[in-house]
Amino acid sequence: MPTRTDTTTTTTIASLPVDPSHGALRPLALSQVTIDGGFWADKQSLNASAIIAHCEAWMEKVGWIGNFDAAVEGRLPADRAGREFSDSDVYKLMEAMAWEIGRTHDDTLDARFRALVARIAPVQEADGYLNTRFGRDGQQPRYSDLQWGHELYCYGHLLQAAVARGRTTGDDEFVQLARRAADHVCDVFGVGGIESVCGHPEVEMALIEFGRYTGESRYIDQARLFIDRRGHGVLGDIELGSSYYQDDVPVRDAEVLRGHAVRAVYLAAGAVDLGIEDEEDGLVDAVAAQLARTVARRTYLTGGMGAHHEGESFGADFELPSDRAYSETCAGIGSIMLNYRLLLATGDSTYADLIERTLFNVLATSPAADGQAFYYTNTLHQREPGSIPAADVASPRASSSLRAPWFDVSCCPTNVARTLASLGSYFATSTAVGLQLHQYAAGTVSADLASGRVAVRTETNYPDEGVVRVVVTETLTDEWTLSLRVPHWAGEAATITVDGETHSAAVGMVHIRRPFAVGDEIVLSLPVEARWTEPDPRIDALRGQRAVERGPVVMCLESTDAGHVSTVDEVRVTGDLRDDDGVVTVGTRRLTVSDDAWPYGVDSATLDADTARVRLLPYHSWANRGPSTMRVWLPLESADSVSTGR
Amino acid sequence: MPTRTDTTTTTTIASLPVDPSHGALRPLALSQVTIDGGFWADKQSLNASAIIAHCEAWMEKVGWIGNFDAAVEGRLPADRAGREFSDSDVYKLMEAMAWEIGRTHDDTLDARFRALVARIAPVQEADGYLNTRFGRDGQQPRYSDLQWGHELYCYGHLLQAAVARGRTTGDDEFVQLARRAADHVCDVFGVGGIESVCGHPEVEMALIEFGRYTGESRYIDQARLFIDRRGHGVLGDIELGSSYYQDDVPVRDAEVLRGHAVRAVYLAAGAVDLGIEDEEDGLVDAVAAQLARTVARRTYLTGGMGAHHEGESFGADFELPSDRAYSETCAGIGSIMLNYRLLLATGDSTYADLIERTLFNVLATSPAADGQAFYYTNTLHQREPGSIPAADVASPRASSSLRAPWFDVSCCPTNVARTLASLGSYFATSTAVGLQLHQYAAGTVSADLASGRVAVRTETNYPDEGVVRVVVTETLTDEWTLSLRVPHWAGEAATITVDGETHSAAVGMVHIRRPFAVGDEIVLSLPVEARWTEPDPRIDALRGQRAVERGPVVMCLESTDAGHVSTVDEVRVTGDLRDDDGVVTVGTRRLTVSDDAWPYGVDSATLDADTARVRLLPYHSWANRGPSTMRVWLPLESADSVSTGR
Repeated sequence: MPTRTDTTTTTTIASLPVDPSHGALRPLALSQVTIDGGFWADKQSLNASAIIAHCEAWMEKVGWIGNFDAAVEGRLPADRAGREFSDSDVYKLMEAMAWEIGRTHDDTLDARFRALVARIAPVQEADGYLNTRFGRDGQQPRYSDLQWGHELYCYGHLLQAAVARGRTTGDDEFVQLARRAADHVCDVFGVGGIESVCGHPEVEMALIEFGRYTGESRYIDQARLFIDRRGHGVLGDIELGSSYYQDDVPVRDAEVLRGHAVRAVYLAAGAVDLGIEDEEDGLVDAVAAQLARTVARRTYLTGGMGAHHEGESFGADFELPSDRAYSETCAGIGSIMLNYRLLLATGDSTYADLIERTLFNVLATSPAADGQAFYYTNTLHQREPGSIPAADVASPRASSSLRAPWFDVSCCPTNVARTLASLGSYFATSTAVGLQLHQYAAGTVSADLASGRVAVRTETNYPDEGVVRVVVTETLTDEWTLSLRVPHWAGEAATITVDGETHSAAVGMVHIRRPFAVGDEIVLSLPVEARWTEPDPRIDALRGQRAVERGPVVMCLESTDAGHVSTVDEVRVTGDLRDDDGVVTVGTRRLTVSDDAWPYGVDSATLDADTARVRLLPYHSWANRGPSTMRVWLPLESADSVSTGR
Repeated sequence: MPTRTDTTTTTTIASLPVDPSHGALRPLALSQVTIDGGFWADKQSLNASAIIAHCEAWMEKVGWIGNFDAAVEGRLPADRAGREFSDSDVYKLMEAMAWEIGRTHDDTLDARFRALVARIAPVQEADGYLNTRFGRDGQQPRYSDLQWGHELYCYGHLLQAAVARGRTTGDDEFVQLARRAADHVCDVFGVGGIESVCGHPEVEMALIEFGRYTGESRYIDQARLFIDRRGHGVLGDIELGSSYYQDDVPVRDAEVLRGHAVRAVYLAAGAVDLGIEDEEDGLVDAVAAQLARTVARRTYLTGGMGAHHEGESFGADFELPSDRAYSETCAGIGSIMLNYRLLLATGDSTYADLIERTLFNVLATSPAADGQAFYYTNTLHQREPGSIPAADVASPRASSSLRAPWFDVSCCPTNVARTLASLGSYFATSTAVGLQLHQYAAGTVSADLASGRVAVRTETNYPDEGVVRVVVTETLTDEWTLSLRVPHWAGEAATITVDGETHSAAVGMVHIRRPFAVGDEIVLSLPVEARWTEPDPRIDALRGQRAVERGPVVMCLESTDAGHVSTVDEVRVTGDLRDDDGVVTVGTRRLTVSDDAWPYGVDSATLDADTARVRLLPYHSWANRGPSTMRVWLPLESADSVSTGR
């Protein structure tokens, strides 16, 4: 089984989530990036100690893993549990386990992984077909419902899990099982086979990565067929419109991401992969242009994507209501996957900007502090305190005021788990002549350049503090380039200190090219202090409002911290914003509307004369203290024409 | 078959849509109110000449009427067409026909009605069950899916059609068929029967009205059972939550309308009916309080209800985004039905205010100018021009940028038809001592007071003009009271002229009590000139925006009339509003945002120095000139902190 031929390492397995055949930047493997302190190390620890086990326990409890036993024992369809695509979550859990095993070499976890393989393997049929929901007596026939059946989507997650397993542990029974499934897909959906696609894109990027991993072009050819077929109405119209599953316009012709947000970003990620492998720059450029427009017009301040609950979908340009922000956790993760592929392809740091934003404000928001509950949707405005989801029953609803332990559709928890387990790869890259740090955390990065290995150690309390100290720990005699990202949000206020000399550092990548010595220290200083953020005037939902951000972290007002009002919707902010070593407060006045009658045309609102200072907290940590109301965007006291008590 | 015992007429059939046993006001029959000129006469003509025939032709075309033939011929379920509740639309068409036959005595229409009865009657089973979707070999069993099966909902529309038929034409085969169905419902769902309810409320008000019509208390008892059972989780939880079908809280305990908007208003209307028949003031008061809060916090400027596409449902308080206004036509009609019942119960003119608003801005908006296409949803903000729905295929989508000829779920066109056919009854009422005019149109109204018949003729070009001239055409020797509604929107500017003397007329009902002579003229003068309307500052979606209303008519800006911009979203309005004999124009500046990058934090917007006057048009008439963008709420030029070219 071929693995990536690294310039200098041929003995270690390259544990790469994504391994393009070419591109501006080369990905680093999990073994080359460690995060050992601070915000993301804590999240990775939470994943290791709680989230992965939580997902596994719940899928045992609700019977999604048991579906495979039921298949072996001939108890299907009678005993089948879960939605038609529940197999996919078992695979996504296994992908998380596989990366985690690669990261921590946890033998116990490896035994659990093997136990799952032992239960799944017997379910695979002789021709490679593997699905607990279709094809048996009493079940719908195989591939009889491509719109909603998700069989190819399930294979996609199986293949991604197999890539993780193969690249961390090596070829094994599970990887071979996946290869049989991939061959089956090519047999059935290849040239001369079923000329259609899956309602939920996912198998495209999975086939390509599996092709990269195995070296088999057949899988990439199959992904190309799927990508080329989609967009021509092959799936038929539905109530939500064929844009729901991106079957309205071919991916090369589309102008913007649209429809179901997770489907859209997964498809786009697969299209970038295909463009890279086919060296079809036009395809990569098309997706990049779609993403650029999506980021400019259809993305929340948090990086979240998807404004509609209906269809879990993107809205129109500038249709970004805070209170109906669907911003599915999986869409955020898919956006990170897409942006990472474009970062590798182009080297453009704006992709890393959006990755950072989405990591801190979507991915980090989903899991509760204890890792036992998750947000599926990530609203930017909670109007009603709502209630606590049941602790022992899967939630039938994607949205709730508090995180739920599990969902009837529970794609998000396992997606969080696999992303946290493979997080290191998103933090740094290399080229033949340099090392690039895109995300900042205490830890180490090493890379094999054309002329040898280099390594750095980073010390930082980012994002609480803005100082990032990078020390060279392994170097070359030749000069090489250390590049650090200056985030877009830093404006003109970032500085970099090299050899005791401080320079201003413009947004983008700051490159330090020289013959480094071990012990050389570079200090990047980022202005993380809290700042006001204004919305684009075309976003109707945000008119007259301001948000507060602190470094890459979006702040919010939770009612728990605003005792002078009954709901955050009564708050109007003054211009007074303070940041006292990370304690962020704003001045507020309370809005009172005395009447409760026809709400148009008569104005009886007043603003309190007194102001109250209230503390803001990072959006990612809201709703850990019981039911509450919350706003990211805060109306200005001057926004409404109200009489004031001043 | 008993009919209403009117004080003075026992020979005519009282063609009353709603006939409560008591209340502050007495309804007038279709025969007592004629509308013979102007806005609503045109709509009634459109209904007679186009809409009813359109609905009938489409239901033949798509096979919903044919389902009954298929049942007789044993071709079900193989040949069944349409959704599970398609029978209901055939009944709603028949209700429209029945009222229209009562209104116009159209023999041809009567023959078409009888032809439908002849096709439906043989489908009814021996025990009264009647439904083309359930109970046959190969179909789901009867009442096996109360959440979504809608069998009782279909009976509800059957009974309402039978009431219309009975009250306009008299007892006939169709009414007897309906009685057997109603008896069947009582047999199966009565005490000791299935202790549940229908997922879609509707049968409650239908059973009560059928009970009123037949004089059988059994039907009212059954409605009481349904209303009492609901709200205790009898239907089980679903993804949308049990509030979707109002099974979360008993109707007497609820604080506000919530969940699926049509379900909510239909249930509330039935609850008012029950409260009246049971003389349970607490129930009527509870619903009135729920409606009051709903009107104050969950209703659009148009009177439209329902902010969410997901679940076709109400949002939270003050969650009223223009661009996602679902505002289903049927929810508006249900609101009219509910408000009419509360108007009759209480005499409070605020209910007639909302009826007027909803008539002009929801009901009148749905049908296209030619009566051949309809809005299902009624958005207040069209962001993208969109496309024209196919003329020969039912639309799978409720929302579109232009009206569609038919829908896969086509509840709205037939609901429009039955409402227009019975519209007169909503316009005026009587008491023992007086006549009340709630809505204004050219036409006649007569009523039988305790001491005899009175009648008036109204001449007006309302709402284009504000003068309403009421002339007494039949009177009594005793004094009696003529009451006219002064709409809430008139503020303090309405006047009334009696005997040549003009007085200011306060909002509410103005009462003129005296011994009228034939020929006496009362002139109500309403300030219909265009005015600015401000939103409640708690509605986030409307901050910094103003609407224009003209009399009861909500105005809008359609891109067709604003050639200086590519979309109405580029428009910012100055304070300059003019109304030149009904030609309404506003001053606007064009907003330009030069960049297309991350939309938060950097502001590059400018406003043109020049202003352009653009014409506004009544919201109800938008989208009759091809694809366009449209806004009801217009951002103020001062709303965004942008630099101006001035």
